[in-house]
Amino acid sequence: MKYSIGIDLGGTDIKAGLMGTDGKLSCRIIVSTRVSEGAKAIAIRIAQTIQQVITTTETETHQSDDSKGEIIGIGLGAPGLIIAGSGIIHFSPNFPGWTDIPLLEYVSAELDGINIPLYIDNDVNVMVLGELHHGAGVGYENVVALTLGTGVGGGVVINRKVYHGTWNTAGELGHTVVQPDGRECGCGNRGCLEAYAGARHIVERTQQKIAEGRKTCLNPEGLSPKQIAQAATDGDKLAQDIFSETGRYIGVALTSIAHILNPQIAIIGGGIAAAGEDILFQHIRAEFAKRAMDIPGNMDIVPAKLGNDAGLVGAAMLAYSDK
Amino acid sequence: MKYSIGIDLGGTDIKAGLMGTDGKLSCRIIVSTRVSEGAKAIAIRIAQTIQQVITTTETETHQSDDSKGEIIGIGLGAPGLIIAGSGIIHFSPNFPGWTDIPLLEYVSAELDGINIPLYIDNDVNVMVLGELHHGAGVGYENVVALTLGTGVGGGVVINRKVYHGTWNTAGELGHTVVQPDGRECGCGNRGCLEAYAGARHIVERTQQKIAEGRKTCLNPEGLSPKQIAQAATDGDKLAQDIFSETGRYIGVALTSIAHILNPQIAIIGGGIAAAGEDILFQHIRAEFAKRAMDIPGNMDIVPAKLGNDAGLVGAAMLAYSDK
Repeated sequence: MKYSIGIDLGGTDIKAGLMGTDGKLSCRIIVSTRVSEGAKAIAIRIAQTIQQVITTTETETHQSDDSKGEIIGIGLGAPGLIIAGSGIIHFSPNFPGWTDIPLLEYVSAELDGINIPLYIDNDVNVMVLGELHHGAGVGYENVVALTLGTGVGGGVVINRKVYHGTWNTAGELGHTVVQPDGRECGCGNRGCLEAYAGARHIVERTQQKIAEGRKTCLNPEGLSPKQIAQAATDGDKLAQDIFSETGRYIGVALTSIAHILNPQIAIIGGGIAAAGEDILFQHIRAEFAKRAMDIPGNMDIVPAKLGNDAGLVGAAMLAYSDK
Repeated sequence: MKYSIGIDLGGTDIKAGLMGTDGKLSCRIIVSTRVSEGAKAIAIRIAQTIQQVITTTETETHQSDDSKGEIIGIGLGAPGLIIAGSGIIHFSPNFPGWTDIPLLEYVSAELDGINIPLYIDNDVNVMVLGELHHGAGVGYENVVALTLGTGVGGGVVINRKVYHGTWNTAGELGHTVVQPDGRECGCGNRGCLEAYAGARHIVERTQQKIAEGRKTCLNPEGLSPKQIAQAATDGDKLAQDIFSETGRYIGVALTSIAHILNPQIAIIGGGIAAAGEDILFQHIRAEFAKRAMDIPGNMDIVPAKLGNDAGLVGAAMLAYSDK
């Protein structure tokens, strides 16, 4: 079996793992990112992590001297605007001050004697790639994916390739406009999907309704989407309304996306998607069914399958993505 | 020079023309479609038109016996949902009762002794292809196009190929949602771009404002978008507001489309786009500039160049589209 290494570079942790062609992860490692130390220090830590995975692999998996040859590539997922082909992080909200950092070059310089190709892409594109090859997207050609977290990320897959667009910013599905005069979004626009379905916005919309006098068991202080989802499951009407409205807005965005791209499937993941079928997904599907054009096929709307592993699996899949 | 034949099949007329690789049209022919006579009669008329173009071409352009060999293909643009690869019209609003009509097969059967490959695609995709190769899209890789007419059509070009999507319905940009609780659209959805920028809707929005008591020189009876555009140019405030609102909604839709697809350019054509820079385009650009994410490149928003020729030029370009 061939292997590749996946690295998930976050603002808090660097996660790494070894993946076989069967999509199974092993040799998982987590180290702290320590953003304040800067890009070169982080590149060194990434290189050390890669070295550690390779050493562990040699010992545990292959037990042969030429085992390095079986690792066909190393993929790295990172937040922000990534110029995938040139290995550059153009800008990242999680790494303040980074502008056009040639991260792959930095990592490569630290990988002494290891001659394995390196790849990088945006963390959301990487998650989509993971779901495409080993998750909910297996068997589909044209896929869109949404990740509902602090922000609302997205990815577009066309003919089983992640589509990057002209300037590497395609797939910003969280910034589909769903309410033109609506809530302010972090991107500067009004009424983006993220301004309704992003974690902070779900909390703020709930707090606003409580301030307006809506009855609820929820305490407006220290609220989280998870608490709201739990309250919805427990029968709290306000919490249910917040999630059904969130679902409706996701349905509106998916309608536009489906009319523009005509994908076979929309995969929805991220922490907020964990609210599940009754609280969230049924409302997404109902809104989409009400709005979408009658065409000769049905776009499926399904939850992501890989959960937290999507980042590592997808990063490891980057090693195959130009083949 | 090589040539191809373009056919523009409409509900009223069948137009045909010969196009050289330089994009210049000649041998234009127009015959009546006569929809009521059915698909086979129309196929015969299309075949006769093709025969006529070829005969004229032999006489006027080539003056040699083996000139047929220089016509490398025949492309046909038709309204509705076209299964491009299989030559089938799945459904067309302009041809009531047609379901899964194998039009290319019918035409081919009538083209006795003429062995030139036939292609078909949706009329809007065809216009986009024309603009891409011989109009406003020359030199661009990733293009979106809107046609503002009775309906609002659209097309998506990725890496210089028209993108059809999973079930041949990609590019329905007129059905991007711009106002979720807004006007009813002909497609059954609410608040599609077409429900604001389609010809009938522009007229209805104007009539509604007149009924509400807005002062204007316009007569609500027998209004057309052209009259409204003229009144706007002449300084009528209501007419100007109708077009600036139309422009703003197009800007909202282009924002979503740009965030999803990250194209280099948006080309806007069709009768209503003739309102021009001051009345329409400046409002589209202003709204887009206000809303779109700050990315490393700027999407241009430009008028289409080919006008009524886009359908014939694009149809003729179908002969090159799989090369």
